Amino acid sequence: MLKLYGYWRSSAAYRVRIACALKGLEYENISVNLINNGGEQHLPAYGVLNPNHLVPTLQDGDLILNQSLAIIEYLDEAYPDRPLLPDEPTARAKVRAMAHNIAIDCHPLNNLRVLKYLTVELGVDDGQKARWYRHWVKTAFAGFELQLEQTSGLFCVGDVVSMADVCLVPQVYNAERFNVPMQEYPLLNGIVRRCRQMTSFAEAAPENQPDAVV
Amino acid sequence: MLKLYGYWRSSAAYRVRIACALKGLEYENISVNLINNGGEQHLPAYGVLNPNHLVPTLQDGDLILNQSLAIIEYLDEAYPDRPLLPDEPTARAKVRAMAHNIAIDCHPLNNLRVLKYLTVELGVDDGQKARWYRHWVKTAFAGFELQLEQTSGLFCVGDVVSMADVCLVPQVYNAERFNVPMQEYPLLNGIVRRCRQMTSFAEAAPENQPDAVV
Repeated sequence: MLKLYGYWRSSAAYRVRIACALKGLEYENISVNLINNGGEQHLPAYGVLNPNHLVPTLQDGDLILNQSLAIIEYLDEAYPDRPLLPDEPTARAKVRAMAHNIAIDCHPLNNLRVLKYLTVELGVDDGQKARWYRHWVKTAFAGFELQLEQTSGLFCVGDVVSMADVCLVPQVYNAERFNVPMQEYPLLNGIVRRCRQMTSFAEAAPENQPDAVV
Repeated sequence: MLKLYGYWRSSAAYRVRIACALKGLEYENISVNLINNGGEQHLPAYGVLNPNHLVPTLQDGDLILNQSLAIIEYLDEAYPDRPLLPDEPTARAKVRAMAHNIAIDCHPLNNLRVLKYLTVELGVDDGQKARWYRHWVKTAFAGFELQLEQTSGLFCVGDVVSMADVCLVPQVYNAERFNVPMQEYPLLNGIVRRCRQMTSFAEAAPENQPDAVV
């Protein structure tokens, strides 16, 4: 069985959980607590699996794989039922670009280790940290909303759920945690609403994970 | 003909240039000067092509595509000669994970707009900014070097040049610009040396672009 090392609130792990749920793939969910004991991702035993000391990590037989989007693309190729990328090259490209708009241009700036660096190393106060967080989300979502005018139907790219939606929903979860104003993104909000009505997205949500603290 | 909107020093554009050179794809190189006039990427006309106001953007007939890795994967699917990803799913996964280790975990933290935010909005001084830069590169390269022990041959994944090498070389170019100490990464350095001996990597290098200021 697939093993997924993740954490309930990690939005990168959340992406992989959604992907597995959409594809009907069962997995053993192994919690790596990013907070307790200074962060279990820093333990040497976890470093053997993931030298970057980040979540998620997927284990599939002999394959040990890090990076959420590499994991999702792998699952889509190795288990092709219920694809998360369309067949046609330009549509595939659009899905990847929209996924990367979130996973590359937005999320890496706002994850736990970066916020910690701002506080500990740069002495940034809570107000500045919140502004930093909102700035990068708003910048990304503003561009995303404009691109949705070209690409979206019921979901980010056309009318079929894809890897782009898989990235968007966890980022919106994060944005809501940090009180980012969301009213300027009507297309984005509509898509997230539709996704959240799907069982697969609900099952994968942070609050529904065994290691959730709510 | 393909049109590539980029900038000589943008490492995301540099990736796409290397990919095109390796695949033997000709393109029209359109410079978007990220420095002059407050940054030409912010011009409304460019925003029509790329609502994120970042480089690169690829135009291929009717397709307008942003995100360097989405562009490279598109080129590899639409122009399959001289592939940048292997055929076998686990090897493909490793290439993507190694590419994302650079493109997701390292580069977004250190690009121009982020360094500008640190200075202008957070009042970070030059010494702190240099430490920030080096911290994220060193963190990424340390994990990368450990992963290379498992994945590398002559190049990042086995003995064939791939999208992982295409991401690594521009990141090393950046690291050298910011005087990141490099002696702790012997496998990484060996791969970069081999890449730089290839004509395709040399042709794509920043200093060899028409808009270079050296």
